Amino acid sequence: MTAPLAGITILDLTHVLAGPFCAGILGDLGAQVIKVERPGMGDDTREFPPFVEGQSGYFAALNAGKQSIALDLKAEGDRAIFDRLLARADVLLENYRPGVMARLGYGWDVLQARHPRLIYGAVSGFGQTGPEAGKPAYDMVVQARGGVMSITGEEGGPPVRVGASIGDIVAGMYLAQGVLAALYDRERTGKGRMVDVAMLDAQIAIQEHSLAITAATGVPPGPTGARHPTITPFSTYRAADGFFVIAAGNDAIFARLCEALALPLSGDPRFVTNAARCENVHLLKRLIEAVTLGETVAHWIGVLEAAGVPTGRVQDMAAAMRDPQVLARNMVLPVAAQGKGPVFTSAGNPIKMTGLPEKAARAPAPALDGDRAAILAWLADDAGKP
Amino acid sequence: MTAPLAGITILDLTHVLAGPFCAGILGDLGAQVIKVERPGMGDDTREFPPFVEGQSGYFAALNAGKQSIALDLKAEGDRAIFDRLLARADVLLENYRPGVMARLGYGWDVLQARHPRLIYGAVSGFGQTGPEAGKPAYDMVVQARGGVMSITGEEGGPPVRVGASIGDIVAGMYLAQGVLAALYDRERTGKGRMVDVAMLDAQIAIQEHSLAITAATGVPPGPTGARHPTITPFSTYRAADGFFVIAAGNDAIFARLCEALALPLSGDPRFVTNAARCENVHLLKRLIEAVTLGETVAHWIGVLEAAGVPTGRVQDMAAAMRDPQVLARNMVLPVAAQGKGPVFTSAGNPIKMTGLPEKAARAPAPALDGDRAAILAWLADDAGKP
Repeated sequence: MTAPLAGITILDLTHVLAGPFCAGILGDLGAQVIKVERPGMGDDTREFPPFVEGQSGYFAALNAGKQSIALDLKAEGDRAIFDRLLARADVLLENYRPGVMARLGYGWDVLQARHPRLIYGAVSGFGQTGPEAGKPAYDMVVQARGGVMSITGEEGGPPVRVGASIGDIVAGMYLAQGVLAALYDRERTGKGRMVDVAMLDAQIAIQEHSLAITAATGVPPGPTGARHPTITPFSTYRAADGFFVIAAGNDAIFARLCEALALPLSGDPRFVTNAARCENVHLLKRLIEAVTLGETVAHWIGVLEAAGVPTGRVQDMAAAMRDPQVLARNMVLPVAAQGKGPVFTSAGNPIKMTGLPEKAARAPAPALDGDRAAILAWLADDAGKP
Repeated sequence: MTAPLAGITILDLTHVLAGPFCAGILGDLGAQVIKVERPGMGDDTREFPPFVEGQSGYFAALNAGKQSIALDLKAEGDRAIFDRLLARADVLLENYRPGVMARLGYGWDVLQARHPRLIYGAVSGFGQTGPEAGKPAYDMVVQARGGVMSITGEEGGPPVRVGASIGDIVAGMYLAQGVLAALYDRERTGKGRMVDVAMLDAQIAIQEHSLAITAATGVPPGPTGARHPTITPFSTYRAADGFFVIAAGNDAIFARLCEALALPLSGDPRFVTNAARCENVHLLKRLIEAVTLGETVAHWIGVLEAAGVPTGRVQDMAAAMRDPQVLARNMVLPVAAQGKGPVFTSAGNPIKMTGLPEKAARAPAPALDGDRAAILAWLADDAGKP
């Protein structure tokens, strides 16, 4: 049994985050990813911190295991190489502003006619259509405009950015889904498709409750800090040495929580139903923390797990990367050194699948244009075929 | 040209959010989704707010277009129906705690032997393996434990929950990717695979910069409010009537910003490089807001767009749902009424694809067990086949 995408070649013109994240997912599923970079500069993220020995750990994590060739798509010789790569590729990925590929002579219409099996995946800020199709976007612009910042932050406070770059990442994930569906479909039809994902659209798509609430009530929800908007107690709480989560989703769990904390509240009319608890959420938080501040996070996790109350630590990234369950799932991987360079670290593949062996390390991220010779040899080897 | 997953049947045992979100993605790509629910209660989210005429808008948005049959997997007659559905299904989805399906007699080993083409997709809090495989999780528990809360919130403030339920949603998206890759692979091999996605793993996988920074420096990053941790000015700013984003990614944009705001700062040594601006980020914010507070968001968006400075509104969900670009992309859809019930609203499909027509409305969400007769007729119709 081979990896599910074994034999698939992704020609990847994307840079920065959304597109490379998508290509990385397809690579984890077994595809060969050929990263086509600008001569001289390459992907902007080669200059993104953190640096180790002058190399970007950000670039290394996102581009581990990919190959790199530098091509100037306005230069004749490089275009000829690109044309030969197109003839061999299953999927082309790009994240230019809409219109750029067409101006280069590589629009979907042209490519579809020339390479009917090619799948064309595009990710952009606002999509290939609509009044603002041509505008650039950044993660934060779509987080802001798509509404997620308006429901993230302290209650009554200003909007807060989601710490992970979900404006890019979620869009890259939707693009991967579209490409995978097109690959499946092509097995039956022999034809490629174009997939068009907008970062702004993707932000709308992930807002399950705020969209439903706004549509039903006319009133958009605001931020609620660390707590769940409609369940109480369901938030972070302070212990002597940090924060932990209590997630008491119903009255029975609340009763067990009260008993575990020796808090005589479960018969109190102010807290007798979830609705009453939501009304008195701030008072209840003070009463709970008056107890929990007296002991450590580890103490309360033990007590609450024993009592059958859903709970968990609030971990910073260093703690998350040492978490025994995270490590048991192989979710923190070294990225092998490129030549004599440093070893970096990346997340593991979260898609565990039969027939897709777990890796002990990721292959290195490529040097800019570092695989040119190998890629040209690969093209020459089979030159007559596609 | 048909939808890419036309003809595919998803047998969906999942409930609440991660699993139904995954099934919804596959449904948007053309698959038929048969939701198998507990008799009597059905999916918990049938009781989730907001309610209109006693029906959940949350359930309707997440389950639009699916069919429902209520089956008790411990009752003989219902198991016989389920067995016949398994024989017809391409994909089984479940989000029970690991071990539950095996105890019901429907573990992967058993199903693989009986239905070699069946793809089995499981999403759980911590995955099918590891020391905590059996534990339940909630969105907030994995947001907390996976590290995203530790980088979300005000600078120096307590951890904040991401307003959208990305603990569930991102896991559901990874499951969709695994299932799609397995569908592609099955066209070549004739064999199904099992896909195992953990909500905690998925949280680790989306933390591109915090993981790279923690690994390279040993110091986990903390929250930085609305601003980007390493680029300045790249944050929200106050105008007279609300917030907007300025995303000045380099010195040239910063110079244009200063000119547009008539701020004589571009030669100032405190702001001459991005590094200097990061050092004086709070001072710079005060200087910028001293200007921007004098006019409206609309004014500044116009001024900055004209000056070529990336910018955007911070929109609440009501504004996002009226955004002309969002509407032009068909990202807000009515969910047709179920019988004489109310019309709800959901997000549109963010995967735009050639040959996948945009819908003017989503089909209704099912009543509990509402498609039993139709599903049984469908099974009877072709009883001899699979």
